[in-house]
Amino acid sequence: MSYFTEAASVEAVNARMGVQTNPRVREIMASLVKHLHSFAKDVNLTQEEWEHAVGFLTRTGQICTEERQEFILLSDVLGLSMLVDAIGNRRPEGATESTVLGPFHVANAPIRQMDDNISLDGKGESCLFSGRILDLGGNPIKDACLDVWSDNADGFYDVQQPGIQPKWNNRGRFFTGSDGQYRFRGIKPVSYPIPDDGPVGQMLASLGRHPYRPAHMHFIITAPRFRKLVTHTFVGEDQYLNSDAVFGVKRTLVAPYLRSDDADTRWHAPFDFVLAPSRD
Amino acid sequence: MSYFTEAASVEAVNARMGVQTNPRVREIMASLVKHLHSFAKDVNLTQEEWEHAVGFLTRTGQICTEERQEFILLSDVLGLSMLVDAIGNRRPEGATESTVLGPFHVANAPIRQMDDNISLDGKGESCLFSGRILDLGGNPIKDACLDVWSDNADGFYDVQQPGIQPKWNNRGRFFTGSDGQYRFRGIKPVSYPIPDDGPVGQMLASLGRHPYRPAHMHFIITAPRFRKLVTHTFVGEDQYLNSDAVFGVKRTLVAPYLRSDDADTRWHAPFDFVLAPSRD
Repeated sequence: MSYFTEAASVEAVNARMGVQTNPRVREIMASLVKHLHSFAKDVNLTQEEWEHAVGFLTRTGQICTEERQEFILLSDVLGLSMLVDAIGNRRPEGATESTVLGPFHVANAPIRQMDDNISLDGKGESCLFSGRILDLGGNPIKDACLDVWSDNADGFYDVQQPGIQPKWNNRGRFFTGSDGQYRFRGIKPVSYPIPDDGPVGQMLASLGRHPYRPAHMHFIITAPRFRKLVTHTFVGEDQYLNSDAVFGVKRTLVAPYLRSDDADTRWHAPFDFVLAPSRD
Repeated sequence: MSYFTEAASVEAVNARMGVQTNPRVREIMASLVKHLHSFAKDVNLTQEEWEHAVGFLTRTGQICTEERQEFILLSDVLGLSMLVDAIGNRRPEGATESTVLGPFHVANAPIRQMDDNISLDGKGESCLFSGRILDLGGNPIKDACLDVWSDNADGFYDVQQPGIQPKWNNRGRFFTGSDGQYRFRGIKPVSYPIPDDGPVGQMLASLGRHPYRPAHMHFIITAPRFRKLVTHTFVGEDQYLNSDAVFGVKRTLVAPYLRSDDADTRWHAPFDFVLAPSRD
């Protein structure tokens, strides 16, 4: 039996967990309490600051809807989403790195043929995306599926503008043949702000941070006997590359976007993806 | 310029704060990010667990109303509220200890005369509360205000049952004279559960914890030139003393509740409060 004391606050709380508690739940909660209390002690958190935090978390929960997830946004801007992605996606040297999925993926996009154009609204600077899907030994992977999506020239995904953008604008799925090659057309993506009209936007402002993400094309690449890869390629000269609001940029994911000589394609973004084998 | 890496995740996030950031905001956010990332790394937090946490926090925010504050409840059951109270209320040896305010205080309760009965619904076991308000030297404090409140015999505060309990049931304010004495009647408080029909209740259940608080009488004691004291006295034999759901119990706040010989008062709870001087 031990009552709460400031010095032994963590032990008092964690000793309360029942003996039947799921071991993983116990591990997570014990660590959460330890770090939460260490945080409050390290900064000597005041009652007023605690009240501010309660109000912030409440507003963050209350602005959430079917279409808006402010807690994911909060996790994103604190680097937690990228950290969880990194922890869960440690890959062998040479394999293409992952980054965050983001909130705008839609399952079951139309299956397209190589060379098809996924940009359906006629806006933006046309761009050819091409390269190979390879294994760690440099061999092409057959039957790989590339599920790709980007914003349009105005910086919005189709699902953010239903009725304004054509359905499935800047989305599609492509399957490789035995040469492991992919090749499709779209637009050179543009940078855009994450939703900043809520609590998270206010927090960013108070930290002197902007809400922009550098321009990027999303990829989910799957193939039998290989690990699923969720990643982006980033437009190499983007002004926000060094200050992505959600910390999604990795050096190896910055792609060249080259001026193209092709009459109807202004840019060319070559990129090879290397998949790690399945773990089972 | 440094992109995000798992190893240097904290530095990547904290380096992003603007130079104009308020120093206290900077200190708090830097520590928060450090502890949040350490937590995720310590437990190797998975994507699925992170999604569970996002869902939990969202539900916690969305159940909040004018009358219900689930984030305060969450802070309470994690011992954070008591910790913040402890950090903000370090007092000299000999001064009565503080505990959490709780969500049921109402300002401007009716001013009563000594010996008045604050129980207006005729329920419960009558109890005499008496003692002295003293300074650290043992001298009585004149003009001290005791703002007191408790639940009724059914375990509810008046504000939880408007229209069922009389307004100001089991509440009142008392002012001491030159002898520093106080003396009022009420009921022996009863233990009660914190609201456990929401996300926090589900969390407690998954941790094998009950939602009960041991019976207690609330006090806010103020006096000119002394530090405000927010505290409870706990009923000594309560079955939940060692397992208060919000960790509010301190050894020095457990009061004797004695059988009384008085014909119309079944219990007597004597307790002296010692106030620390103001810091200014």
